[in-house]
Amino acid sequence: MADLTKLLRAQGEDPLAIDTSATPGVEASGKKAGSRELSEGVDALAELQERLFAASRGGQSERRVLLVLQAMDTAGKGGIVRHVIGAVDPQGIDHVAFKAPTEEEKAHDFLWRIEKRLPGPGMIGVFDRSHYEDVLIHRVRHLSTPEEIERRYGAIVDFERGLVDSGTVLVKVMLHISKDEQRERLAERLDRPEKHWKYNPGDVDERLLWDDYMEAYRIAIRRTDGPATPWYVIPGDHKWYARLAVQHLLLAALREIDPQWPPADYDVEVEKARLAAS
Amino acid sequence: MADLTKLLRAQGEDPLAIDTSATPGVEASGKKAGSRELSEGVDALAELQERLFAASRGGQSERRVLLVLQAMDTAGKGGIVRHVIGAVDPQGIDHVAFKAPTEEEKAHDFLWRIEKRLPGPGMIGVFDRSHYEDVLIHRVRHLSTPEEIERRYGAIVDFERGLVDSGTVLVKVMLHISKDEQRERLAERLDRPEKHWKYNPGDVDERLLWDDYMEAYRIAIRRTDGPATPWYVIPGDHKWYARLAVQHLLLAALREIDPQWPPADYDVEVEKARLAAS
Repeated sequence: MADLTKLLRAQGEDPLAIDTSATPGVEASGKKAGSRELSEGVDALAELQERLFAASRGGQSERRVLLVLQAMDTAGKGGIVRHVIGAVDPQGIDHVAFKAPTEEEKAHDFLWRIEKRLPGPGMIGVFDRSHYEDVLIHRVRHLSTPEEIERRYGAIVDFERGLVDSGTVLVKVMLHISKDEQRERLAERLDRPEKHWKYNPGDVDERLLWDDYMEAYRIAIRRTDGPATPWYVIPGDHKWYARLAVQHLLLAALREIDPQWPPADYDVEVEKARLAAS
Repeated sequence: MADLTKLLRAQGEDPLAIDTSATPGVEASGKKAGSRELSEGVDALAELQERLFAASRGGQSERRVLLVLQAMDTAGKGGIVRHVIGAVDPQGIDHVAFKAPTEEEKAHDFLWRIEKRLPGPGMIGVFDRSHYEDVLIHRVRHLSTPEEIERRYGAIVDFERGLVDSGTVLVKVMLHISKDEQRERLAERLDRPEKHWKYNPGDVDERLLWDDYMEAYRIAIRRTDGPATPWYVIPGDHKWYARLAVQHLLLAALREIDPQWPPADYDVEVEKARLAAS
């Protein structure tokens, strides 16, 4: 597979100018081949995750990964969590789904609730929605003033720089689907009674503001992308592709850390003797 | 498969009086067959979990599951989480590994940190260690007075009754291995450099108190078992069996709840028209 950290890296004036139905850098074609390729990455991901976790024990390493998932409704965040994150040992995953903020959370700065849920050393944190909602829906729905939103871009840059400085590898993903693809996926939810709970009328309200959201994403990505705080825009019309791409980006993040099994901090032979005598 | 909720239910004066190498109620024999049978339960567990999650949306149901895992070191809690819980959508799992309490936690009642980590409606909570440590290691190591430990059995009974009353199905599991099996598993950790991080000399210190721990388990189980707060003692020498058994108990808990897809709280036809026009 080609290096997706390069191919999918957000760039230029319009970071969303990528065909949402494309499958760049991947030889597999179609759901079946994609799913097979995904399963081929599972063992490598599992071993790297366990090494990351092990390396953090005893306070020996502060390294950790934070995957930020942002997308319009139905873009496939849930499937990424189920199929990519779900293949990793739950003990090494810190998954947080950020919903509309509570009254208590609203009374604090927008980063307050985010800071409380950051992954600890050795963990892979997954933010299903994130602090970016505070410059996306807030911009589109005028929930904050333009000045406050302006301030937030800067606050996010400072905040994320702090995360990187303290050992976090950040992977920020925007799952990018077309407006037509979203219509099809919402229609499917309405067609199937066991999917009705996943739909709510507000989804169409948001959809009517599609262009405003795309513009809010463009600005947020341009303002907060940096060499150590990279954004990736992943074409999402093909779910199998988006899953492969996220797995690939996670593998790359873990390989960048290159975590090692920590050496014993005790005398192995002494312990073997103690154990045998016990 | 036989009904393991009956076969494995803790009972009598000595709830640990079960052969740790037994495989009651299961036809499969051996790692391979056990693993195949485990994978056969995955789809049922996934669907029930999704139904449980769906049923809780919109505040329509308070039902949830809490799996409490207790065991001596190396008994296989980690494998249960990886292989049984790991097969479920991470979005529906709330996994908490309780470590030695922090200074802040010690300054509060022992249930304070537990209450903060209870699963929300629709979730499957997994406690890897739990409030039972406060009557197990505390009893064995005299970390609390006998009077305080006595008080805690009652506090736990009240606490768990409250959980059940508010919609939680409790599944309390003691993974039970033999002292010899533990020696073998610890020896394996000492033999393999990539496992060294999992071992610490304190493991043998605890092992030397094996009989005291078994007695503490017997008392804790007898004092806190009830029809709605059941303890299960699972023979753990065969890892494949313990995994199958926990999956079976989780399936039974979910079937007891019997969660249903919630009906739409909107007009489906109206929404189809709105969507088509958007």
